[in-house]
Amino acid sequence: MPQLRLLPRRAWAALLSQLLRPPCASSPGAVHCHSQVSEIEKVAKAVLTSQLKPHQDKPNFIIKTPKGTRDLSPQQIVVREKILDLVVSCFKRHGAKGLDTPAFELKEVLTEKYGEVSGLIYDLKDQGGELLSLRYDLTVPFARYLAMNKVKRMKRYHVGKVWRRESPTMVQGRYREFCQCDFDIAGQFDPMIPDAECLKIMCEILSGLQLGDFLIKVNDRRIMDGMFAVCGVPESKFRAVGSSIDKLDKMSWKDVRHEMVAKKGLAPEVADQIGDYVQCHGGVTLVEQMFQDPRLSQNKQALEGLEDLKLLFEYLTLFGISEKISFDLSLARGLDYYTGVIYEAILLQSPAQAGEEHLSVGSVAAGGRYDRLVGMFDPKGHSVPCVGLSIGVERIFSIVEQRMKVGLKTFLVRTTETQVFVATPQKNFLQERLKLIAELWDAGIKAEMLYKNNPKLLTQLHYCENMGIPLVVIIGEQELKEGVIKLRSVASREEVAIKRENLVAEVQKRLSKS
Amino acid sequence: MPQLRLLPRRAWAALLSQLLRPPCASSPGAVHCHSQVSEIEKVAKAVLTSQLKPHQDKPNFIIKTPKGTRDLSPQQIVVREKILDLVVSCFKRHGAKGLDTPAFELKEVLTEKYGEVSGLIYDLKDQGGELLSLRYDLTVPFARYLAMNKVKRMKRYHVGKVWRRESPTMVQGRYREFCQCDFDIAGQFDPMIPDAECLKIMCEILSGLQLGDFLIKVNDRRIMDGMFAVCGVPESKFRAVGSSIDKLDKMSWKDVRHEMVAKKGLAPEVADQIGDYVQCHGGVTLVEQMFQDPRLSQNKQALEGLEDLKLLFEYLTLFGISEKISFDLSLARGLDYYTGVIYEAILLQSPAQAGEEHLSVGSVAAGGRYDRLVGMFDPKGHSVPCVGLSIGVERIFSIVEQRMKVGLKTFLVRTTETQVFVATPQKNFLQERLKLIAELWDAGIKAEMLYKNNPKLLTQLHYCENMGIPLVVIIGEQELKEGVIKLRSVASREEVAIKRENLVAEVQKRLSKS
Repeated sequence: MPQLRLLPRRAWAALLSQLLRPPCASSPGAVHCHSQVSEIEKVAKAVLTSQLKPHQDKPNFIIKTPKGTRDLSPQQIVVREKILDLVVSCFKRHGAKGLDTPAFELKEVLTEKYGEVSGLIYDLKDQGGELLSLRYDLTVPFARYLAMNKVKRMKRYHVGKVWRRESPTMVQGRYREFCQCDFDIAGQFDPMIPDAECLKIMCEILSGLQLGDFLIKVNDRRIMDGMFAVCGVPESKFRAVGSSIDKLDKMSWKDVRHEMVAKKGLAPEVADQIGDYVQCHGGVTLVEQMFQDPRLSQNKQALEGLEDLKLLFEYLTLFGISEKISFDLSLARGLDYYTGVIYEAILLQSPAQAGEEHLSVGSVAAGGRYDRLVGMFDPKGHSVPCVGLSIGVERIFSIVEQRMKVGLKTFLVRTTETQVFVATPQKNFLQERLKLIAELWDAGIKAEMLYKNNPKLLTQLHYCENMGIPLVVIIGEQELKEGVIKLRSVASREEVAIKRENLVAEVQKRLSKS
Repeated sequence: MPQLRLLPRRAWAALLSQLLRPPCASSPGAVHCHSQVSEIEKVAKAVLTSQLKPHQDKPNFIIKTPKGTRDLSPQQIVVREKILDLVVSCFKRHGAKGLDTPAFELKEVLTEKYGEVSGLIYDLKDQGGELLSLRYDLTVPFARYLAMNKVKRMKRYHVGKVWRRESPTMVQGRYREFCQCDFDIAGQFDPMIPDAECLKIMCEILSGLQLGDFLIKVNDRRIMDGMFAVCGVPESKFRAVGSSIDKLDKMSWKDVRHEMVAKKGLAPEVADQIGDYVQCHGGVTLVEQMFQDPRLSQNKQALEGLEDLKLLFEYLTLFGISEKISFDLSLARGLDYYTGVIYEAILLQSPAQAGEEHLSVGSVAAGGRYDRLVGMFDPKGHSVPCVGLSIGVERIFSIVEQRMKVGLKTFLVRTTETQVFVATPQKNFLQERLKLIAELWDAGIKAEMLYKNNPKLLTQLHYCENMGIPLVVIIGEQELKEGVIKLRSVASREEVAIKRENLVAEVQKRLSKS
């Protein structure tokens, strides 16, 4: 396509950003997918058209969604609904209340909460009035809600979109608009009981979604800070060095070490001492081992963290999930606000699976304790201790869509729930069809018909097959004369005549059987 | 409160905007509502605190949500979930697929779609990259989706937030962030069949919500334009005069006439002729009557509109809803993009009710045909005809919350769904409680316990009563010794001992009965 070389820079940028998107998940079954047309083809065509006709009055810009965002197709919506249903049921099973907060907050509410990543916050334009920013997560708005309403105790869930101006690493499935599913417990309680419940919830959800085997890494900010202290990191660099450690799942130790030394100004021997610690991971025995560590055991903070982890493992054993949990000294978590236990769940793919899918998904759930965030909003600094978790549903959506695409888990996705189709083999039967379908709707039955005065019977039956509608109600001259209706099963193609007045009852009977 | 006079202007503005908010809907029943504390008291306290301690390090700004926005409390979430469930089930009953679009669009996508109200669009700050705006409705993003993906036919629903910088008329329940529920049918079909279905859906939803009697006003943009033409309005002023007419539900004819003459530059005698028409409303007989109107019947556009309305009424009669529909020549609808039939549903309050509630809610659902919007996004101007509706769920939420508050419809709102509470009368039973509750969770039973090592039994039982939890599972020394569990009904206070190993089965049996 040599013409494309002539495109203006802006058009190229748009084209590239379209090409970088993961393609829409297509259903392997009978459902027609509008998005199956190659993205490349479509965008190239749009770009060329707008090139060739620069003086056309109709839009002189490329029709696309903003960079890093996308529409969700009906197929994607169906997958999402199922996953979110499972997640929200689990949150409700654990007694959580729903809460919703605005999409944007006062800019000041978000300031100094996120550390290094604050530059990724979307600001709104100053159109006169308050300075506003789109929310970056659901945790800070929750803390703001607690402080503003002086709520001292609350268990809530929140499913909502958040926005982050990430650089275009969208190949890895990162979007600038994405959905978060959060569960948090706020209040002063006895140690580690709510924390253990958060880990139980993560296990229930990840097991329930049947994504394969998983592992939850656990650490504690106090252990990490204690480790930094005994290794000789100056306190002012704790968070910066933590941010480097946080990259260990994406970068090698060598690169992380280089960043700590070259960019964060750490002495090489300090970095090496950290390097020894962050290799450690294991179960409750590693906790015991760290109690014996000659240096860590001298650090008050680290000891507190280890005491709590020991108690946590005790509760996790009672919950029957301790074998899913790994104490991992390399776990850092990026966000500034954590103060105690932190955790992150990852999927463990068998080598065969990994080879087949080539899908790197990173963590699928994470969270931790943040005891001082609410206090940052209280005029007197009074705080409410909190612990919570966030399910990485976007990554889970990607995995499920990917599996559907490669056919590892084949199932037909119906994008509608229509149960009955109202058809006619004859002309001039629109009125009868309208009366029939209204009767079905009024009885709560999900029904469709074609919006044509005189559709062909074959077209109508094809529609049912394509859309997976199980039952057809047919009315024609003969049926009208005899006061009956034909009921047709789409799968078996069997037809049976029933009395017109029994329509709803007969349809309901058949639907309850299937 | 004379101190308040000393507040800085900004603090005053924040206080006022808080005072103008409708108070949170409180439940009349047993549920504890955090928001019951007077808003005034809270804000005044916050303002004063920040006044008195200006040099405190903790936040030097007032903690609030942005102007015109609010958090939704658990009580409000429960009400919303119920209403949205009913709305979405109806959309699915009519065969709609789900779709989601990003919260923001390229600024250019929204430009020149909304007419006079375009100034209310929220823009994002230019942080380098594309110029973006928050979506103003769900219709324009839908049209953009259709054009971008070359979709020629689609029936979709979309529930999502939209943002409008409305002036602070929040006393009337208008917010700058609100939820829309849209259903649209795109595609080339035989006339008025999808249009009639849209009106049927509005009737089903409004009846289903049991909001009281309602009426749907119907008009057609072509009839309105024809009316303007025969009255002598210059074509360039059609949309501007339409915007004035649109205010007839909030302003008197006298004021609207004044606006048309003084602000829109209409000749007084032209305005008076319009005045004669816009008084007309009635059923299908008014349609017939307008066919006979010596002037309207000379206008090609108006005739087309009347033909369609006649057909529409025929279909509405077959659907059994024609008595809910009123042809109303004063109905204009504010948005620019409509091209054919338009409609708007209003609630009809009995004088007694109106007197009791003093709640002016305006329209609760609206929509119409927009055949040229998709074409505005197509490089060649090819369009896809569309018709749709939007349910004014925010107003419906307000009405239901208002009714709950004044006790017209008393029902207890549980904000959690917890079925079983795990309690103990003794100290040192945390481990047993943890084992029990994990067993319940793993069986899919919604269960809670207190996060205390040694809670008092009375505290635990009170919690169940306050939260409306129906069943308590009690374990103590004696139960442990005998291998049993006590099951207690919170309502009857009856207790029965069951075998430990039958716990899940017995609980499920009791829950299925209630």
